[in-house]
Amino acid sequence: MPELTIVQLRNPVRDTAARTASVRPSTSQGLLGVARLPLHGGAVLERGVIAWRLVGPAGAPVVAVLGGISAHRVACDLENPGRGWWRELVGPGRPLDTDRYAVLGIDWLGGAGASSAPMPGQADFPAVDARDQAAALLAVCDGLGIARLHAVAGASYGGMVGLSLAEIAPTRVGTVLAISAAHRSHALATGWRSVQRAIVRHSLALGDGPGGLALARALAMTTYRTRAELERRFPVQGTPGSRSQDFAVGQYLLARGAAYAESTRPECFLCLSESIDRFHADPARIRVPVHLVAIAADQLVTLAEIRELADALGGPAVLHELQSEYGHDAFLKETELLAPAFRAALEGETT
Amino acid sequence: MPELTIVQLRNPVRDTAARTASVRPSTSQGLLGVARLPLHGGAVLERGVIAWRLVGPAGAPVVAVLGGISAHRVACDLENPGRGWWRELVGPGRPLDTDRYAVLGIDWLGGAGASSAPMPGQADFPAVDARDQAAALLAVCDGLGIARLHAVAGASYGGMVGLSLAEIAPTRVGTVLAISAAHRSHALATGWRSVQRAIVRHSLALGDGPGGLALARALAMTTYRTRAELERRFPVQGTPGSRSQDFAVGQYLLARGAAYAESTRPECFLCLSESIDRFHADPARIRVPVHLVAIAADQLVTLAEIRELADALGGPAVLHELQSEYGHDAFLKETELLAPAFRAALEGETT
Repeated sequence: MPELTIVQLRNPVRDTAARTASVRPSTSQGLLGVARLPLHGGAVLERGVIAWRLVGPAGAPVVAVLGGISAHRVACDLENPGRGWWRELVGPGRPLDTDRYAVLGIDWLGGAGASSAPMPGQADFPAVDARDQAAALLAVCDGLGIARLHAVAGASYGGMVGLSLAEIAPTRVGTVLAISAAHRSHALATGWRSVQRAIVRHSLALGDGPGGLALARALAMTTYRTRAELERRFPVQGTPGSRSQDFAVGQYLLARGAAYAESTRPECFLCLSESIDRFHADPARIRVPVHLVAIAADQLVTLAEIRELADALGGPAVLHELQSEYGHDAFLKETELLAPAFRAALEGETT
Repeated sequence: MPELTIVQLRNPVRDTAARTASVRPSTSQGLLGVARLPLHGGAVLERGVIAWRLVGPAGAPVVAVLGGISAHRVACDLENPGRGWWRELVGPGRPLDTDRYAVLGIDWLGGAGASSAPMPGQADFPAVDARDQAAALLAVCDGLGIARLHAVAGASYGGMVGLSLAEIAPTRVGTVLAISAAHRSHALATGWRSVQRAIVRHSLALGDGPGGLALARALAMTTYRTRAELERRFPVQGTPGSRSQDFAVGQYLLARGAAYAESTRPECFLCLSESIDRFHADPARIRVPVHLVAIAADQLVTLAEIRELADALGGPAVLHELQSEYGHDAFLKETELLAPAFRAALEGETT
């Protein structure tokens, strides 16, 4: 990746990055207590907790990194490079370079981490919106004394949260990089997720929530990937006499689902899956510079929706249209492909 | 629909149609007993039963009509025009005109009708292939004294059966009209169906097979229809605070699934869903004239696959590429759109 150069810097916070680039990055993390968090849906979360993690040089400009509903506060881990849900994109020498930027992550409200979330069997946890996640992130920034984020880099649900942050607190963020995220969900995407949630609720009612979650995630996998990738990996389907367990593509999807269900509570999945579908941002009210990344083959958040968002944004917008057979999951897979979008967003290019 | 004219007839069987066009159509149906039906997968179905139904003028050329895995022997009903799974396309004055043709339908082996099928809880019903359905259809033809079918008009799974019939018994059929069917299943389609079957098996194990079948069918609906149709019908997704039951597109899909589960045994769904995925025809061995209909927006059987089939067929092939926002379900919805393909196939046009 080309070096960032001072001449291209456009705001004073970035000068700090240049000054502190030689400071060795370190990690801090903690739990922020919030006495009362009014939620966008009208409910109030009382005595909320938000788990956060900050990695990078002291004093460096801060970039919040936010992923899908199964992401968490550990995007990268300096001590354990094999850990971290975004370890290919975030870390020392990576497109989001923790030698130059401090990287802030949180566990989602309602998610499987250490932030406030529904307990097993809990049905009355309030509806959480992407906007509430943005408010939680701002509360963490307040607690850490971060007046303004240099950028938010979010993918999928995290991209929605980044857009929400730009909408509700434009003075608190310099640039939003939103990857495979739009201002609203498409009917087919909501349909797919509605079926996933119904599977989980049905299984919870029958006493096997994890089994249902594994099936729901297997379905989700069919929407995260593409026809082309599955066809390349599983070119041969059945043969005479073959039974369900013989189809390799099905084995793969179900195995991925089962692995997911081992680390996620069904109630948390329900909470965050719903949160995606109720999301709606008003693009005209988003006036901070936004870099959008659209993967042409993404079935879940389509190029058409992201183009619609790009056209409707109220401020500077750069749309990066990219090709990847990984579809929606490209943000987890395509380091080289995404690097230029990270560079452009972090350097504040708006043309 | 334009009238068929005698001058366009190309084979002697059609002359019979012209002669008998004034004969009033009638209906006969019955159960054919088959002592021993060797199946393509290697097992043998002992003491099998195949339910059949024949509608049309006595002596008219016979067209077999075959639909998806939830279709059955009643494509149309002269006494009750509101009944019949293909009543828009098949019947008096319809594109497949029962005043001119006799229409033969069967209940699928392994399906929800009156043919041999797994009993509730039965796990050892043999694997059924589309080729076995073709053999069952031929057995019915033998029983009824039908030496040669004028045509087979099949959609979805029924299209696969039509292709199988052409492959295994080219002297028994004049033309195959295969709508939204290809010679093999795509990995994503098999993946979607694998998840559906896993949902049903999981629910059967928990004691609620119908509940699982409803969910599996809701998932299937997302593959039968298209992004464009769902977006048109359900343009607005969630709002702040909305919960799962508030999403109209989800309500629709789940309601359709629940309705389906009322009339289908889970074990039969499993049998026929598997049958789709193990299907594989060798196009080069299909030498009878074939008319293929591909719906450009079909997610389940794509235009690319049907073009591949058209290019590989061993005999005359006509590919009708059509546009419908109903996607895979167009064969149930698009009477006007499909009428020319029916006309061309029934009249034996091969250019």
